Amino acid sequence: MEKLCILGAGSWGSALGLVLAKKGYQVNMWTLSEEQAEKINRTRENIDYLPGVLFPNNITLTTDIENAIKDSKIIVLAVPSQAIRSVCKQIKTFVNDDQIIVDVAKGLEKGTGLRLSQVCEQELPNNPYVTLSGPSHAEEVAKDIPTTVVVASKDLEIAQSVQDIFMSPKFRVYTNPDIVGVELGGALKNIIAFGAGICDGLGYGDNAKAALMTRGIREIGRLGQAMGANSSTFAGLSGIGDLIVTCTSMHSRNRRAGILIGEGKNLEETLKEVKMVVEGITATEVAYEVAKDLKIDMPITNAIYSVLHNGSNPNEVVIELMMRNKTHEMEEVVEDKLGF
Amino acid sequence: MEKLCILGAGSWGSALGLVLAKKGYQVNMWTLSEEQAEKINRTRENIDYLPGVLFPNNITLTTDIENAIKDSKIIVLAVPSQAIRSVCKQIKTFVNDDQIIVDVAKGLEKGTGLRLSQVCEQELPNNPYVTLSGPSHAEEVAKDIPTTVVVASKDLEIAQSVQDIFMSPKFRVYTNPDIVGVELGGALKNIIAFGAGICDGLGYGDNAKAALMTRGIREIGRLGQAMGANSSTFAGLSGIGDLIVTCTSMHSRNRRAGILIGEGKNLEETLKEVKMVVEGITATEVAYEVAKDLKIDMPITNAIYSVLHNGSNPNEVVIELMMRNKTHEMEEVVEDKLGF
Repeated sequence: MEKLCILGAGSWGSALGLVLAKKGYQVNMWTLSEEQAEKINRTRENIDYLPGVLFPNNITLTTDIENAIKDSKIIVLAVPSQAIRSVCKQIKTFVNDDQIIVDVAKGLEKGTGLRLSQVCEQELPNNPYVTLSGPSHAEEVAKDIPTTVVVASKDLEIAQSVQDIFMSPKFRVYTNPDIVGVELGGALKNIIAFGAGICDGLGYGDNAKAALMTRGIREIGRLGQAMGANSSTFAGLSGIGDLIVTCTSMHSRNRRAGILIGEGKNLEETLKEVKMVVEGITATEVAYEVAKDLKIDMPITNAIYSVLHNGSNPNEVVIELMMRNKTHEMEEVVEDKLGF
Repeated sequence: MEKLCILGAGSWGSALGLVLAKKGYQVNMWTLSEEQAEKINRTRENIDYLPGVLFPNNITLTTDIENAIKDSKIIVLAVPSQAIRSVCKQIKTFVNDDQIIVDVAKGLEKGTGLRLSQVCEQELPNNPYVTLSGPSHAEEVAKDIPTTVVVASKDLEIAQSVQDIFMSPKFRVYTNPDIVGVELGGALKNIIAFGAGICDGLGYGDNAKAALMTRGIREIGRLGQAMGANSSTFAGLSGIGDLIVTCTSMHSRNRRAGILIGEGKNLEETLKEVKMVVEGITATEVAYEVAKDLKIDMPITNAIYSVLHNGSNPNEVVIELMMRNKTHEMEEVVEDKLGF
């Protein structure tokens, strides 16, 4: 059985592990926690992150990272975005140059504002790199509910080999050459999802949320273009597709965190209640700084930032967003060079 | 009190009547049904279409259409799209040329494939025309939950006067000069909402639905462009905004109808259960014909058409849509000249 490895045993890493295991690969999943590894190996269930889903016997949990990646054609990075650099540092000394790094985390590095492909390139400059993104709640993927995602790489052949590894009738994988756009779509949509959650938490309805999402995809598309993405990518699966799924589903922890903020909880209480990593919060902080440097107008991101860090009242902020002075829709549209 | 009129007393006509009444206008709402008029005038509630919402005393229901439109600066057409022509014919002889037609129905005329502005222009060639569209469930508008919409007209001043009439802190109205795009966004999104409902009815998840919606907005944008719309409009409130709200909310009767089809009911049973007009079904039929004439590739529309009229199995059709041969996302994106 061909061996593949996944670093990280959260919900997304586990769901992808299941996709690969069902295709017949021997999947080694690495986790930091001895307790988690032992429990999943014994119970065949990841009770904390993916309850109710059976792990077949060709998935093995391990805490030995060197052994996990040994002989694996791909190394799936399924850790939180802020842990990508440290994991790369950890495997640096024993990784082979032909092992393909497949990043499935969505985020930007705090402090540097770097995309995760750039982080990996700094740490593992000789390894080919692929990012995998798109509208894909782990809970659905784990249950074989049909899902489509995108893989992007500088090198089409590399992307295609990763496509072949993951592709199944229930898990459709497309390629896209715009690695910057695919990465940024995945990272920045969490900001809007967090904002959509705030809207929901405040008791606004579907109409207001749809308006926020419509402006949100423009706003992140605008920043994405300034950061080097192809604007078309934001109209695809890793842009609007992922935005829609994240803003409308209760599976999304970014949205759930926003709901708590909208209901009046503070950041600390919210993080405690959601338990998992909320990428949207970091993404807001990073995008806020990057947009300031690049002089890009980001009204939604700025509003969320001020709720998180300047004690702004969520309700006032949402009203302000809705009451913006412009009354001609096309002014905004033309400024943003939008279009389907 | 300045008098305004709304023709049609369904949920959307009623919600807009409430917006205007709260601004202090005397609102005359016309309905065909003596019984409905009497009941609403007496109970101050539109129990069949907008239960639980109080109609203030400055809304009056009437079955006298000539009296309803007399002295009203605007004539709001809030009847099903297939009734627009007959209502225009009905008012033709007593309408004044300076009365502004405000169409709030979303659809295309069966048989002719005409946009509703074209229908109105044929019947009332001397009257200024405005279309009002966007993500706006009547149920939320009626309850003062914040909502943003777009008005479009050939004449900006006319659009602005309608904007002024409707604008309130909870009902934000933008103008957009692209009347074709605004009309088509509203009409064609119902096809995708109906398809999203089928997806839901079949038990697919959020991931698949988001993928369908992502392709759906492209597909209707493609047809829209071929029909003369500005592609940017599809990235705005009356395009992607309205698509999102319609595909994700249970308020949408188009989505609810799709769910029933997905669950295995036939068209007749579905229409009986939903009771209200399902614009998405007519829109599918019209768009199918128009796209064939214009040679535009519409895989989702064609699939839905074949479920409705050729007895195709919904599940097989959805699988086929997901399994399309293309595996490079950008092939599709570039073909469609997409971009944010």
